[in-house]
Amino acid sequence: MRHAVILLLLTLSPALWAEALLVEKQRFEMDNFQTFNGQQIRKIQVGWESYGKMNKDKSNVILITHYFSGNSHAAGRYHPDDAAPGYWDAIIGPGKAIDTNEYYVLSVDTLANLSAHDPKVITTGPASTNPDTGKPYGLDFPVVTIRDFVNVQKALLDSLGIDKLHAVIGPSMGSLQALEWASAYPERVERLVSVIGAGRMDAWTVAALEHWAAPIRLDPNWQQGRYYGGQLPLAGLTASLALITQDALHPDFVNGANPDHHPLEQAPLTDIRQSHQVVNWLWGLAASRARMVDANHLLYLVRASQLYLAGMDKTLEQGLRGVRARVLLLPAVEDQILMPYLTEELQQALLKQQKSVTHKNIPGPMGHLNGLRNIDQVGETIRTFLQQGNPL
Amino acid sequence: MRHAVILLLLTLSPALWAEALLVEKQRFEMDNFQTFNGQQIRKIQVGWESYGKMNKDKSNVILITHYFSGNSHAAGRYHPDDAAPGYWDAIIGPGKAIDTNEYYVLSVDTLANLSAHDPKVITTGPASTNPDTGKPYGLDFPVVTIRDFVNVQKALLDSLGIDKLHAVIGPSMGSLQALEWASAYPERVERLVSVIGAGRMDAWTVAALEHWAAPIRLDPNWQQGRYYGGQLPLAGLTASLALITQDALHPDFVNGANPDHHPLEQAPLTDIRQSHQVVNWLWGLAASRARMVDANHLLYLVRASQLYLAGMDKTLEQGLRGVRARVLLLPAVEDQILMPYLTEELQQALLKQQKSVTHKNIPGPMGHLNGLRNIDQVGETIRTFLQQGNPL
Repeated sequence: MRHAVILLLLTLSPALWAEALLVEKQRFEMDNFQTFNGQQIRKIQVGWESYGKMNKDKSNVILITHYFSGNSHAAGRYHPDDAAPGYWDAIIGPGKAIDTNEYYVLSVDTLANLSAHDPKVITTGPASTNPDTGKPYGLDFPVVTIRDFVNVQKALLDSLGIDKLHAVIGPSMGSLQALEWASAYPERVERLVSVIGAGRMDAWTVAALEHWAAPIRLDPNWQQGRYYGGQLPLAGLTASLALITQDALHPDFVNGANPDHHPLEQAPLTDIRQSHQVVNWLWGLAASRARMVDANHLLYLVRASQLYLAGMDKTLEQGLRGVRARVLLLPAVEDQILMPYLTEELQQALLKQQKSVTHKNIPGPMGHLNGLRNIDQVGETIRTFLQQGNPL
Repeated sequence: MRHAVILLLLTLSPALWAEALLVEKQRFEMDNFQTFNGQQIRKIQVGWESYGKMNKDKSNVILITHYFSGNSHAAGRYHPDDAAPGYWDAIIGPGKAIDTNEYYVLSVDTLANLSAHDPKVITTGPASTNPDTGKPYGLDFPVVTIRDFVNVQKALLDSLGIDKLHAVIGPSMGSLQALEWASAYPERVERLVSVIGAGRMDAWTVAALEHWAAPIRLDPNWQQGRYYGGQLPLAGLTASLALITQDALHPDFVNGANPDHHPLEQAPLTDIRQSHQVVNWLWGLAASRARMVDANHLLYLVRASQLYLAGMDKTLEQGLRGVRARVLLLPAVEDQILMPYLTEELQQALLKQQKSVTHKNIPGPMGHLNGLRNIDQVGETIRTFLQQGNPL
């Protein structure tokens, strides 16, 4: 079936082929955004993109919420010669599981987006200019939460006249936003797909996320977040991204990617300043990503994630009370970041309140990253789920 | 049965009771130690202690090899009013699984022992004075390996006239030393117990261990290891110990220890510089340990662990070829550091060469730390194993 789609695409004229897959980043701006913790941000701008076409009654809209180190580029290419398409291109597009012939799919860059220095990302965060001072906010930027990311998305949807979502779907930190949509604005969300997700951050996961922030704060160039215009805290940022990458992976994948590994390598055996090849490989991956990333944004995304509790209420049960959406949970086997027990806890909490919820495990050797790289393994499950009747 | 032992102890006279449990740190010194990588250390001293009495033909000796952040204090107390006994006191002592009425049990501080500043630890490492310069070695100390730890222990045993070990038993990094004994000096080791162990460091684990070292190198006080006499790299060291502690634990334990955790705590919600209570708890645990720890020693122990391959040969199979000991493997369920697949790999490699090997899982909610805190769960397994016939 997938082969058939590829063949079909190959036989289309180049113009049509390009039209089907090319996407464009757009900009959404707001004045005077109030954060969940009660602070004001005078000006906000975020990037967004869309795939497919909105129907007349605006009833075919699917929102994709992105993961920690992702952005709104969920599918397609900006240019025909882009090396890679958006991260979920395997399931978003014409004829794919999230079929852009049927649905109008859109996605929005979060506040404090990790890749603040990627020219294709538009975001507002500690690296942005504070209009009150003319200088970057740094740590004066308010703490923002998953609810704030949702509220920016909601403002964009309002501006487009969209008041119902056929579905909201996201992986990892995107799953938190998706669940927050269904919890905070239940009358607007018909279906929810939480991929490699959680209902709340337990003590273990809050502590685990803190290790991602620690190396940045140790870097002498970090300077309490006031490094703009000076030396960047790249060493700390790289160590942080190396840890995030490892946490997102699994032994099978790392060992497979390093088939020549030998514990007794000569360089680390003879010199404490040198490292094993697998360390150089992992740090190299991290260093190549660090140039696009803002270190303070990483701290703010860690914090937004740590503060997550569905519905932002007193308990998980209270936060989920309003949920009306059908729910599909897609945890990944051997996920080291949002361990499958977190999805299990969410499922039990939903079942206890007689919500409509099902789940399926995403298989594969990549741990947490199965939710991105192996998403095609559950494509048909998502397709079928999206065709189920509207519960609202 | 354990109650019977306790009752028995309580009925002994105070003098006997003290004699049974009090231990003393001793010192062993060597000149001109040659490391595995071919370098020389002019003077070495390490601490050691023992429990029980050696028999006449010196055939009742059991060596305990310690874990990454441990030392030779495996059992007993230095003073009757010590807050806690040695780490494996639950299984080492009169009438216990490793019965000091029957065996002479000894344990030795490793080179570059983590707790270099604990007055009860005697070790030689980067914090020691280099006799050539009169100053601490820092990074001029040679890279040392698990084989070097074993060779120091072997020199001590030689000095005591001990040429056979009834058993060598160790958890975690201690399991690597125990296996190295059986691989490098097979004619000396009758039985081997590898607790929460591994046969070699795969690429995944080498990379995972590197994250323990990274925060220290980022601390501006670290100064490429030349911090002696100046500001100590305590912030980096604390972050490192916090990560090690979390890696050694499991969600069940951390969540159980933080029953009042709530993701939406006020302090981290309103101030990016503040943290969740669970983070303060974990960092507090780490900070309280940091005062005894030397940061460079931590880097050297990470490296010694990363370089591990049983027998230090070309392959695991070649390294294990000589093993004659009976082998008992005791992995912990849900161990996040030395994941159970590493024990499985070792078991398969031993079976392939028709070695005598069995295994049993240590249950409990503490992940890797089950190998320390829940060791009594496999006490009877160890006791029975030690009674099996000598295979040499």
